[in-house]
This record gives sequence, structure tokens and C-alpha cells, in this order.
Amino acid sequence: MSVETTATIASFGGKLLKLKHKASTTNCDMAFNLYLPPQALKSGAKVPVLFYLSGLTCTGDNCSEKGFFQHAASEKGVAVVYPDTSPRGLQIQGEDDAYDFGSGAGFYVDATKEPWTKGYNMYSYITKELPETLFTSFKELDSSRVSITGHSMGGHGALTLFLRNPGMYKSVSAFAPIANPINCPWGQKAFKGYFGEDQQEKWKQHDATELVKQWKGPLEMLIDVGTGDNFYKQEQLLPENFMKAAKDAGNDKGINLRMQTDYDHSYFFMASFADEHVAYHAKHLGV
Amino acid sequence: MSVETTATIASFGGKLLKLKHKASTTNCDMAFNLYLPPQALKSGAKVPVLFYLSGLTCTGDNCSEKGFFQHAASEKGVAVVYPDTSPRGLQIQGEDDAYDFGSGAGFYVDATKEPWTKGYNMYSYITKELPETLFTSFKELDSSRVSITGHSMGGHGALTLFLRNPGMYKSVSAFAPIANPINCPWGQKAFKGYFGEDQQEKWKQHDATELVKQWKGPLEMLIDVGTGDNFYKQEQLLPENFMKAAKDAGNDKGINLRMQTDYDHSYFFMASFADEHVAYHAKHLGV
Repeated sequence: MSVETTATIASFGGKLLKLKHKASTTNCDMAFNLYLPPQALKSGAKVPVLFYLSGLTCTGDNCSEKGFFQHAASEKGVAVVYPDTSPRGLQIQGEDDAYDFGSGAGFYVDATKEPWTKGYNMYSYITKELPETLFTSFKELDSSRVSITGHSMGGHGALTLFLRNPGMYKSVSAFAPIANPINCPWGQKAFKGYFGEDQQEKWKQHDATELVKQWKGPLEMLIDVGTGDNFYKQEQLLPENFMKAAKDAGNDKGINLRMQTDYDHSYFFMASFADEHVAYHAKHLGV
Repeated sequence: MSVETTATIASFGGKLLKLKHKASTTNCDMAFNLYLPPQALKSGAKVPVLFYLSGLTCTGDNCSEKGFFQHAASEKGVAVVYPDTSPRGLQIQGEDDAYDFGSGAGFYVDATKEPWTKGYNMYSYITKELPETLFTSFKELDSSRVSITGHSMGGHGALTLFLRNPGMYKSVSAFAPIANPINCPWGQKAFKGYFGEDQQEKWKQHDATELVKQWKGPLEMLIDVGTGDNFYKQEQLLPENFMKAAKDAGNDKGINLRMQTDYDHSYFFMASFADEHVAYHAKHLGV
């Protein structure tokens, strides 16, 4: 459970910590980044936490360098956690063969199909082991005030983790999420690989469009998708399916899906709206 | 003189253009990036321009992805130009052998020593050819309102171009500039290579600490240096020499050198203070 600090970098008046720990859920060392805003550096401080889940091919580094979340997180006093996107180096055959499956593509699920059960348990890692490790190691983080966001595969992760765990997160937002994975090539490949082709019920349990139908009570979300996003055009994201399902279930009133003209799938897109997403979460986190 | 647009990327309400053109000063195709803020996209608009000169090893891409100048540039209505740091692919022997000389290390001088005279003329490129190309191609840029900033080797470039050309730039700022190159290893290696070991007068003409002694009239600058910057500790930057020379010449009153506690030499450092630098230039550019 102990966390090793491999670097400390000054950023926007706070500190970006590069960390690693031995994780039992994923059966390997896991690297992640933690941004502590200036408010967290004061004695006795307790700051809320925003989890940012990255997309395919990324590690926790990309967004901490290019996503611009630290700008508003510093202003609002919110810590940001940037986890990795999969286990690394498990020596599973085929693990590094594709950009959209295996390394860098854990899809925030617990695999039930061999050999991926060996450590592809990013659902348990993100919802249980990483927060337990964080809140044990960093007393300046407030475990009672946690929100979640993410990009692309990480947007899928943010939506599904929020919808599967009512009350765990104070708020959710997403950038270009894979919103209906059971109906797009990326999701189908991942779920086939991690769960098996015949496990349709399991697939649905990790599909935001299926999950939003089951939600009870008020539901609020902020989702941005760029109209110039090639993966949106290729129907990998399918936000319309998500909105239709939410509407059919009467759960759409609080979902703010913004189609952002001309924006693509890159970190330029996220950086442009990071301030607004952090402010959205800050409001729900009481800062 | 014609400029080819290789990509257009939405960013903070404006557009980041990836451009290239055939440059005669550098004897090769030169890539650069131009950020047009939303204010520049209106018909008949004229926006001021901030040149950002990059450091060793970088191209115009690094800062446009990780420097976050676009955030404040969008708010203030300032265009940002991110040029490359040297000619590329001139087939000069040894051109790609070192990170601090040749490719990626043009040092914003016009070489007088063979074989670098073949195209290592980044001084003429940045002060003449690139602005002429820009203002011919982009009528929305106001050629009468131009400022300059830069990082490390690019901070050296910003300071020396400003000090050598009174009136050319409305304002200057720098992040961790190489402030006294004739007295540090990086500068000595570069000037020896591009000018020759015995050209001491030439060396001084491109040294900010020498140039600041000659300045006539009021002088204002914003300079940030991190106290955790390893290159500062290794005496590659020498801001104290610059300040002493300015003071001895009575030119230090308007120079705001800020030693930023714990910050390093990275883009995390620049991103943290980019808003303030852009605001500083915006004030001088009349926006």
C-alpha cells in the first residue's frame, strides 16, 4: 500500500507528484500522478479530489502535461488524480499488439476472461485500491468529496463508474466519451476480449447507455464532444445513443451534452474546456 | 513567400494553424504554428502578435501543446507565433550530433562561420523573413503591434532581438533565459560554432548582458526563473549577471526578475506563468 514519490514538480502554485505503488488488483507496479493544489499544502488542509481517467494509449502523464486541469484546480483548491489506463508488463501474450486492447486500453473493467484476469482489473483498481491507497497516504485529501471525469475511453470509465456506484462520486463529466461501447468497434473489441463474446449481460453492465436507463433519482452531467472529432464521425462515441436512452428513461433533464463546433479529439480540445469542467466539479465538491 | 496550412486545430475558441513555408534565410522549408484568437476570426479584424521563441531541442509544437499561452491569448485577443528553433535537414556534417548545437539549437543568430552559413540564420529568419511572410499572408495580424517572449535559448533570443532592435517589439519577457551566453557553456559552444572562437565582438552583439549595458531610454521587462531549475543551478542562465549589468548601466529599474520558488525548467513552469506573461504583453500591445 505504500506509495513512492518519483518526482515532485511545481505547477500553478501547487505540486504535481509522480507516484508509483505496487497494486494487487492489477498485479503490477502502477504509476500515477497527483496534483496537490496550493490549498492542500497548508497544515491540516482537506481538499476534494477529482479523478481524471485517460483515453486509449495514454498514461497519467499526457493530461497532466497537456490537459490544463491544474490551472483551475489551483484556483478552486481541488486535487487531481491521473491514473494509468491499464496494468503494464504482465507478460500476457498479445498484450502490446494493439493500441485499443491490452496495454493502455484497460477500459475500466475487471476482466473475466483468461488470460486477462491476471491483472486487467482497472474497475477495482480505480474504484477501490487506488482511492484506498491515496486516502491512506495523503491525509490532505478528503475521501468524502470525490468526483470523476475522463476522456474518450476514460469518459466511458467516468460515466460507467459514476452510474454503477451511486453516491461514490459527487459529480461526473466527460470529454468525448465512448458512450455506448457495446455498439461501437472499440467497445466491442474490448468487451469481447475482456469478458467473452457470449457475455452480453456483462457487456451491458459496463455500457453507459445501458446503465443510464437504470438510474433512479436526479441525474446531472456535463459532457463535451467536438463536432470535428474523427472518432465521433466514425461512430465510436455515439453520444446520441446515450442521450436517447436517458431521455427514454426520463433521466435526461440534467445532462448537459455540448457539441463543440470544430473541436477534435485531442488535448487541445480538453484544454479548451478544462476550466469549465473543473469549475463544474468544484461546485459539486463544495469549493 | 506562400504559406501552406498543414492542419487547423480548434483551441480556446480560436484556431491553431500548423504552417510551413520555403524560407530563403534558412535555405529550407520551415514549419511554425500560429494561434489565431477568436477576435482574429471576425471580418476586418486586426490583432496584435506575440512571438514565442522556443528553447533547445524544441520545435514550435511543444509550447503550443504544453505552454498554455492560448488560454490568455484567447481572452486578450493576441495572436501567438511559435517558430522552429533552427533550419532542418541541411545535410551539414554534425548537424544532428548534439542537442545543444545544430538542429534544434539555432540560438537566434546568423552564423558567420562555415559550414553553418548555409542556413543557420535564425536571427534574420525571426526578425525579417518570418514576419514579412506572416504579415503578407495573414491580414488579420497587426504588423505595428508585435511583442516577443521565449524560453531558455528562446529567452536569450527574445532578450537579444528586443535589445538589438529598439522599437521593433512593444514589449519583451522571458522564461529562464540564457541571459549571459558568452559566460556559460551552452552559449560558448554555440557562439564558437556559429561565429568562431576569435570573434569576441560578434559574441557580445548577441549577449543580453552585454547589450543591456548599451540600452538608451526606459527599459521594461518581465523575467521568470525557477529556483529549482537545474540549468540555473548549473550556471547556464546567469540572470544575476544580467541584472548586475543592467544596474551598473542604470537600466535595471523596469526589469522585473522574479525568482519563482521550486519551479524547474519545464513547460510546467511556463504554463504556470503563461497567463501573466500574456497579460503583460497585452497591456503593452494595447489590448
